Amino acid sequence: MIDETYMELALQLAEKTLGQTSPNPVVGAVVVKDGKVVGLGAHLQPGDAHAEVIALEMASEKAKDATLYVTLEPCSHYGKTPPCVEKIITNGLKRVVIATLDPHEKVNGQGVKRLIEAGIDVKVGVLEEKAVLLNQFFFHYIKTNLPYITLKAAMSLDGKIATKTGESKWITNQEAREDVHHLRKTHDAILVGINTVLEDNPSLTARFPDTGKHPIRIILDTHLRTPIDSTVVTDNQVETWIFVGKEVRREQMENFADFQQVTIIQLPSEKIDIKEILHQLGEREITSLFVEGGAEIHGSFLKEGLFQQVMMYIAPKLIGGRNAPTVFGGEGIEKMADVFNLQFTEIEQLGKDLKIIAVKKEDTNVYGNC
Amino acid sequence: MIDETYMELALQLAEKTLGQTSPNPVVGAVVVKDGKVVGLGAHLQPGDAHAEVIALEMASEKAKDATLYVTLEPCSHYGKTPPCVEKIITNGLKRVVIATLDPHEKVNGQGVKRLIEAGIDVKVGVLEEKAVLLNQFFFHYIKTNLPYITLKAAMSLDGKIATKTGESKWITNQEAREDVHHLRKTHDAILVGINTVLEDNPSLTARFPDTGKHPIRIILDTHLRTPIDSTVVTDNQVETWIFVGKEVRREQMENFADFQQVTIIQLPSEKIDIKEILHQLGEREITSLFVEGGAEIHGSFLKEGLFQQVMMYIAPKLIGGRNAPTVFGGEGIEKMADVFNLQFTEIEQLGKDLKIIAVKKEDTNVYGNC
Repeated sequence: MIDETYMELALQLAEKTLGQTSPNPVVGAVVVKDGKVVGLGAHLQPGDAHAEVIALEMASEKAKDATLYVTLEPCSHYGKTPPCVEKIITNGLKRVVIATLDPHEKVNGQGVKRLIEAGIDVKVGVLEEKAVLLNQFFFHYIKTNLPYITLKAAMSLDGKIATKTGESKWITNQEAREDVHHLRKTHDAILVGINTVLEDNPSLTARFPDTGKHPIRIILDTHLRTPIDSTVVTDNQVETWIFVGKEVRREQMENFADFQQVTIIQLPSEKIDIKEILHQLGEREITSLFVEGGAEIHGSFLKEGLFQQVMMYIAPKLIGGRNAPTVFGGEGIEKMADVFNLQFTEIEQLGKDLKIIAVKKEDTNVYGNC
Repeated sequence: MIDETYMELALQLAEKTLGQTSPNPVVGAVVVKDGKVVGLGAHLQPGDAHAEVIALEMASEKAKDATLYVTLEPCSHYGKTPPCVEKIITNGLKRVVIATLDPHEKVNGQGVKRLIEAGIDVKVGVLEEKAVLLNQFFFHYIKTNLPYITLKAAMSLDGKIATKTGESKWITNQEAREDVHHLRKTHDAILVGINTVLEDNPSLTARFPDTGKHPIRIILDTHLRTPIDSTVVTDNQVETWIFVGKEVRREQMENFADFQQVTIIQLPSEKIDIKEILHQLGEREITSLFVEGGAEIHGSFLKEGLFQQVMMYIAPKLIGGRNAPTVFGGEGIEKMADVFNLQFTEIEQLGKDLKIIAVKKEDTNVYGNC
């Protein structure tokens, strides 16, 4: 029980840095000696000291014979910083409690092995589930080299994202819309289709300027129809990456040359291939992607089963109408046996609205395989 | 606090009889003397003794100078049973605690008035909100002479009730489907459209034979296309009322004469008019109606705003597709300003699925009025 208590604290330290450490994981650490907390640490941003190192430095000579609680296996390799396990050994820790192993190929049990070899008492798996969930983006990225994908939408209780005339302002209330801004900043990038840019001219920023990191804005725009005066181009607030098909001419792209925050990425294919985009995003160290739609974009991700979780805001409203648009456009699935099975992981009331998070059950269907 | 405790018990007694007292309300009563419960009662079914009377009879001579807790104002008129207030007075009760007044025109404060005149200490409004909610069907019916309408549907997280090919078995899991059976029995009648009968040949019974009361099955069937061998006609389990348009010929209706449980009700109009149906159901003492769809039936009720609550079962599944059917068919609403605003009143996980109940906010829009 006492181990869980201190690990809970370490997890809280880690949680507060969500969205600022990518492509690194969030990590929290606590040093405890004779029942007293003597050191606290969290990894703050790439290149900065690791959580364990900060906590050990705070503990100073009190670290000797103390217990270190850390949410992720300490590293054993030289990266941007020296390996944490050596620091732990040098500082004379007696015991190390770890929530979960680091799946990174350079760690993955090596850290634990080194600690045990040095005669330190090691315990792994305390609050592991929570620790894995906290770093789900990182874990996914490390394993696949592709971003963790969240499909987000707001709909009425009867599943509509707009009236039959296309009016959609606003389905959800202020609380839900603010929550979206919070969630944007926990992802490395936000993705929308060109229609969303043309219809709404959104800014797609996380409106919490104190948080430092803004997610990169990604526009899927086969024919480069993004207006040169649209907010994502001109506001100079955040990077915007526009993916275009191979038929877009060089001169067309050069029109955007003056906007330093705008990068146009031409694909080798005529049409936009979601898999290719994700591959390119992975290469560019985008570990998490927040897909905001519209319906056809969502439909494209759904069609290929390219998502890990769905975040749905449901408003207590009924719109009705067989032709009013719904969250997922595209063709859709034919047989009940082939539908995507999810699992609800979070259900929360946000003001008058409801927020539902569901993760894809990887053991069930992959669209089109059956 | 002590009043709330005993009223809570009275409400629990009432709650357990939900679905068996219609067109009467559910009522629970507790008699307390010197801090001890000396009498308990609930109204069990129409024609049976009222809750107060049962509790007072159990209390017998201990009722003298005792306190009676009752969830609904005691009646003051001769109905199928003599007025409860006279029994309370005769039995020498000292104090009566009432959750809420009875809106029935023959009671509505008259009971309280009579008790006060007789020198009894009366307190009204203890756990009133809960008591009103418990009898929401009855209260609605008494005020409008129309049934309280629940629109029920099961959908995927993306708002679909079937795949694009119409396959819908099963969206939700066993727990949710069993919950539907429980809810059916709390309503006086279940309503579906002819398409549901033709497609699914459902039995539309509440599969809990121990509960006694089965809701009446109502089919909206303009042209009397209900097959003579369909389950709702032949099973002889429960009454089935089939509403048909005026163009249906007498001979066609006479085909059903052999089935004693089947009643065919011809409307004065060619098409089915939901308002007329509800009026007729009100006349026949149907105080609550469970509308199970399909999409076009739901759409008709939505179009005219003819519902009080929506009960949505949401499965953790994604079906997708711009042409896959959604809960409400029909035209749908044009402007966001005109959508129906609801309020979530219950959110519950049922196995893997989610159950959401939302009530219509009467202060907001009525469809088509804007």
